[in-house]
Amino acid sequence: MGCPEADADLATEVLLSADLRGIDSHGVARLIGYVRLWETNRINACPQVRVVHETPSTAVIDGDRGLGLVVAPKAMEIAIQKAQVAGTGWVSVKNSNHFGIAGYHAMKALSQDMIGLAMTNASPLVAPTNSLERLLGTNPIAVAIPADKEPAFVADFATTTAANGKLEILQRKNQEAPLGWIQKADGSNSTNANELKAGGALMPLGGETGSHKGYCLGAVVDIFSAVLSGANYGPWVPPFVSFLPLPSDPVGEGIGHFFGAMRVDAFRPANEFKAHMDNWITTFRNSRAKSEERPVLIPGDPERITEAKRISEGIPLLEPVVKDLETLAQKFNLSM
Amino acid sequence: MGCPEADADLATEVLLSADLRGIDSHGVARLIGYVRLWETNRINACPQVRVVHETPSTAVIDGDRGLGLVVAPKAMEIAIQKAQVAGTGWVSVKNSNHFGIAGYHAMKALSQDMIGLAMTNASPLVAPTNSLERLLGTNPIAVAIPADKEPAFVADFATTTAANGKLEILQRKNQEAPLGWIQKADGSNSTNANELKAGGALMPLGGETGSHKGYCLGAVVDIFSAVLSGANYGPWVPPFVSFLPLPSDPVGEGIGHFFGAMRVDAFRPANEFKAHMDNWITTFRNSRAKSEERPVLIPGDPERITEAKRISEGIPLLEPVVKDLETLAQKFNLSM
Repeated sequence: MGCPEADADLATEVLLSADLRGIDSHGVARLIGYVRLWETNRINACPQVRVVHETPSTAVIDGDRGLGLVVAPKAMEIAIQKAQVAGTGWVSVKNSNHFGIAGYHAMKALSQDMIGLAMTNASPLVAPTNSLERLLGTNPIAVAIPADKEPAFVADFATTTAANGKLEILQRKNQEAPLGWIQKADGSNSTNANELKAGGALMPLGGETGSHKGYCLGAVVDIFSAVLSGANYGPWVPPFVSFLPLPSDPVGEGIGHFFGAMRVDAFRPANEFKAHMDNWITTFRNSRAKSEERPVLIPGDPERITEAKRISEGIPLLEPVVKDLETLAQKFNLSM
Repeated sequence: MGCPEADADLATEVLLSADLRGIDSHGVARLIGYVRLWETNRINACPQVRVVHETPSTAVIDGDRGLGLVVAPKAMEIAIQKAQVAGTGWVSVKNSNHFGIAGYHAMKALSQDMIGLAMTNASPLVAPTNSLERLLGTNPIAVAIPADKEPAFVADFATTTAANGKLEILQRKNQEAPLGWIQKADGSNSTNANELKAGGALMPLGGETGSHKGYCLGAVVDIFSAVLSGANYGPWVPPFVSFLPLPSDPVGEGIGHFFGAMRVDAFRPANEFKAHMDNWITTFRNSRAKSEERPVLIPGDPERITEAKRISEGIPLLEPVVKDLETLAQKFNLSM
């Protein structure tokens, strides 16, 4: 694609981190989608990522239409640098594209004894509470918090009841979705995993009596990522798939992300904080479970367990993903 | 109680803002509870609130066992001052008590063209996903975002399916709770609004298939509010009611809060940002609704509508609340 080697390495690392952590929907399965966006000139393979505005603790970054997989790590690095000097760093990004898993970016803060935050808006698939229209993306939030002897706390979740990736798995397996995930075009509940093709929408986190809270969360992610930076927001966020047209009346540039880094010792000594995090984690993990088969987990446990397994046993790929990778290898004259 | 007049005025304003905005559970109905905490020496009526650690964009505040209603506005003021210089300000608070509605504190940023955030931990009523134990409070999050001609965006919500205040209303009316709000002591679902008295627990936001996300949110609030500041966290958070004993082995001091202020023009010119917020708000508000009776709302709409009504018509008080206020008036020789 003409992508500089360092950028290609970075993008590879972000995609592989998703596959290793078991977020298959956001790993190499997406590679062909990124290539298609490049082919339709929606992704710039050689972006000049630059700071367009800054204060001691903030920056706005123009991603120059680059791969989010490349733009996001650079933005997170700036948040970390700001935090080293000012205690915290907050970076809003415009003119970017899909950035892979949010958790990867948030976790970059951990080795610096910092708390990391990452969020992004995404193409509109979600109807706000009471609405029939798809106005928000699945808009994930990730928060990574360092501990001492215990593995870090890493929350990474879509602000919908279910991430779109989980829906894609049901679609492939031809299975029904639980109630509370999806609504039909007329707003009524649906269990059809393909309902979005018929004008349906994903529902915000919270279900029947609480979806207004998921709507709030998704809205905050949209505003921090895009209204603060000058990216497109709400229904104007460009689609991930290259066959859908771009909105004709953009309100900003590309999609938006938001990153945060907070130095733990900007609040209290890092060793004190991390010792209490160990206590927090062991207290929660050792609490009495409803059933022995399903112990109480700490955010990040499932992904960490999958990562350890896949590092030793390899990453299983679905047949269609292997086919896509073969197609790409052929297109770019690469051996597989 | 010996509270300085300025502090008493401040506490009154915070409590009244809850009643005006329709959050009756957090208004003057709680006054008698605060007094009881003072009577049992759990609240210091004359706190010396002080900064114990700081960087350009952060501070940790010791609330000196004061009323949260007094400590929180002072902490938010410091967050705003930090943001004026460093672009953003982040303040974690220890040794405090219940701070009223989170939204009041977040909204303090609006008049400065800043985004405000406020969160607090609270006494443990919520069982993490898979757990039988009450380890988290209802841990609310508030985010206030300024607009131009439109009223501000103000999200303010507990990270449980339902706030404890909503449960209290059902208890008073002797009504059942919807499924997904409460679990029994054995972990099974319950619709009994009094289940917590029998060892039950509130459930995190997200319901049957999504409660791990609400658990993540409540956990992040707990850690930002208390592990960062040195307050009590998880099951060690002191109870609001004075008749329950304090945990005998505290891991910190009092309860914890966390506040943030982000200057909008630390990212882009405030007039640009606010014009786009107007567009965001009108786009969402004017989207097609499922039914005409229930239009699509912007976070903060219901509270703003209630506030306008109550400012002109007055605040309706339940009989038991009036009785409590009469008791207090008598105790302190005040006319009513």
